[in-house]
Amino acid sequence: MTTERTNRLGVPGVAGPGEDERAAGASSGLDRWLAATVARRLGSAPIGISLWDGSAFGSDDRDAVRIRLADRGALWGLALNPEMNFGDFYSAGRLMVDGDLVRLIDLAYGSLARPGRRWNLASLIAHLASRAPSLSRAKRNIHHHYDIGNDFYALWLDREGLQYTCAYYPSAEATLEQAQVAKMDHVCRKLCLKADERVVETGCGWGGFAIFMAKRYGTRVRAFNISKEQIAYATEWAAREGVDDKVEFVLDDYRNATGRCDVFVSIGMLEHAGRRNYPTLGRLIDRCLEPNGRGLIHSIGRDRKARLNPWIARRIFPGSYPPTLREMMDIFEPNGLSVLDVENLRPHYARTLRHWLERFEQNAARVREMYDASFERAWRLYLSGSVAAFDHGTLQLFQVLFARSGKNPLPETRAHQYSRTGY
Amino acid sequence: MTTERTNRLGVPGVAGPGEDERAAGASSGLDRWLAATVARRLGSAPIGISLWDGSAFGSDDRDAVRIRLADRGALWGLALNPEMNFGDFYSAGRLMVDGDLVRLIDLAYGSLARPGRRWNLASLIAHLASRAPSLSRAKRNIHHHYDIGNDFYALWLDREGLQYTCAYYPSAEATLEQAQVAKMDHVCRKLCLKADERVVETGCGWGGFAIFMAKRYGTRVRAFNISKEQIAYATEWAAREGVDDKVEFVLDDYRNATGRCDVFVSIGMLEHAGRRNYPTLGRLIDRCLEPNGRGLIHSIGRDRKARLNPWIARRIFPGSYPPTLREMMDIFEPNGLSVLDVENLRPHYARTLRHWLERFEQNAARVREMYDASFERAWRLYLSGSVAAFDHGTLQLFQVLFARSGKNPLPETRAHQYSRTGY
Repeated sequence: MTTERTNRLGVPGVAGPGEDERAAGASSGLDRWLAATVARRLGSAPIGISLWDGSAFGSDDRDAVRIRLADRGALWGLALNPEMNFGDFYSAGRLMVDGDLVRLIDLAYGSLARPGRRWNLASLIAHLASRAPSLSRAKRNIHHHYDIGNDFYALWLDREGLQYTCAYYPSAEATLEQAQVAKMDHVCRKLCLKADERVVETGCGWGGFAIFMAKRYGTRVRAFNISKEQIAYATEWAAREGVDDKVEFVLDDYRNATGRCDVFVSIGMLEHAGRRNYPTLGRLIDRCLEPNGRGLIHSIGRDRKARLNPWIARRIFPGSYPPTLREMMDIFEPNGLSVLDVENLRPHYARTLRHWLERFEQNAARVREMYDASFERAWRLYLSGSVAAFDHGTLQLFQVLFARSGKNPLPETRAHQYSRTGY
Repeated sequence: MTTERTNRLGVPGVAGPGEDERAAGASSGLDRWLAATVARRLGSAPIGISLWDGSAFGSDDRDAVRIRLADRGALWGLALNPEMNFGDFYSAGRLMVDGDLVRLIDLAYGSLARPGRRWNLASLIAHLASRAPSLSRAKRNIHHHYDIGNDFYALWLDREGLQYTCAYYPSAEATLEQAQVAKMDHVCRKLCLKADERVVETGCGWGGFAIFMAKRYGTRVRAFNISKEQIAYATEWAAREGVDDKVEFVLDDYRNATGRCDVFVSIGMLEHAGRRNYPTLGRLIDRCLEPNGRGLIHSIGRDRKARLNPWIARRIFPGSYPPTLREMMDIFEPNGLSVLDVENLRPHYARTLRHWLERFEQNAARVREMYDASFERAWRLYLSGSVAAFDHGTLQLFQVLFARSGKNPLPETRAHQYSRTGY
């Protein structure tokens, strides 16, 4: 066995070529029985499985996607806890995929979605409960994901707004850059943003949207984020764009936000906030928002309550939880807020992720060079799995527009959201 | 005391001129103390109260709205259970309002909304719980409201679609007729209705929307309603319009609906369905809807859970319950349905109700002639109270568009809803 080390994501990596070393000996009868069992669990999906000695199971269709297992540990690990180990072994290069990774995950979703068909009990037990992260835990969680390095994200995010959230495609032909600008504009149109209005933004990423609002709409923005690297980047960027008098980036938890605002906006933060913090977020909005204020929350969500895939939860997004609309109501209902408009942008996130994946692949060598091969594979799996999750409807993307109960701060129809001349 | 009779709504009516007969004698010290107490509960709202002997309490502003009480029973009844008795005494002509009724109710809402300020305990106890009506109860409830007589509704509803639900005003200048046609078209655009598609409509009223879909979009509609009078009207109307080959009106409870459909639509029925029937409704949709089907539910709702005003619940809409969005999720979540779009049309319902109230007033003499003065007053109060409830945000109007989880039967943006050229 080779000695393993873990990479920045905590994914077990490989020390060297590895694969061949582990693949000692022929498969046993027991190995082959297990492989056949795993293959049977996939039903009629065109997925094949082959072992380190070349023995093959499952579909032998010409266009089947093939999972190659490099050693006995990978086979047994996959059988016992596929949801966790598929990702770890793929990242480690002990599980390889011949064919399209997105398609494989899509096929697996289809296979698992059928009632009564579950990989196994262990995959259900490996449940990572959603807990409201404490302030220090929230910081650790965000650090895990976002402080990997601004350079890494710059390789595959859009060049316009550095948006690490769902874009909005006015047409299927839009580029990633166009779609991210359209997303920012779509949000501003929904909110009917006006010059000199005060905006509070929680979870501002690299600051692209705050800067966009200041430049395009002339608003004043206080933007919160607990990622040091992102705040540093954002502050410098705002200065470069000449809007540092309009935008203030605050390195602090959103729960510590103070002051009044006309508009509250949060794009892609709620998924990381933890479900038990929703009432707190609602009270914060109630505390900050002027009587005629309005707000928008943009978040990954669910059609029905479910746990996040444990591998994503452990390796990629610790502490994250995509809520149902029902769960999101904990923000609005107790705090005198009225939901005005909900838009589900699910297909747009699948498109966005395909664009990210494409650019990621174009820069794969660079990623490997900056980190290592296991990091590169982990990230490929995460992006591919996310494409499949949004395609398949496992995940949704909700934009929820709201105002105080009984107030009319916005036009009575949504036509202005789609008018060329604006509102 | 005059002998009282009750009118069709169960509202105690008056046998003759009545008012003067009851107003015997001067008010006592106790009467005046009680009137002053009731007035104090209204806080600083410009509302005055005067008794049968002319003694006055509360605001004496020139533009105050004045409540005149005709007898001692009305005063004590109002003090003990205002939410129920205000309506009954107003209908009976024992409580009169000098000034604008909508404004009075609006002021009372404002006064009651302040924390710690409640009319009294009795008004809270008079809670009519929302129960899932049984099939026979549902029929009685609907009969109570809708079988009053088609002629009555024809006096003040729009002449185009006979729509007894919230209209959609593309602009503030739209007439009621234009706004009801726009509403029907807005729903069809959201659903991207196509010729020859099969639609199931539950709660079809007088059939206006079913006929609209058949005529304008060429769809085939099966429309359910448990009101005999409405179904008879609808069937005849469809024949007159020459679409009786396209539209089938079924006198049956929606829960008995069978067959498959491309589109499921329900406008203004959910409020009458009873909360405990939502899972049943969801299963019905799941049973009927084709894999690439889509649906829309249009319903009065709430920002937060509350009981309906007990007078409305008893006299006007027995068994009705306006749900929160959270409660509506009982329809979608357990049945593999994905919410695509929610629009809150609250201000549109306030406009619609103002239009109805205006026409109702124009036809008040005719209503009195057809029924009696107490019926006329009860209906005026109901329409006025509803204007105030939607203005004030006590009630909402949600249109919820949905499809099966993970399916994409509709365009990825909502631009087609607002395009002149359609979809």
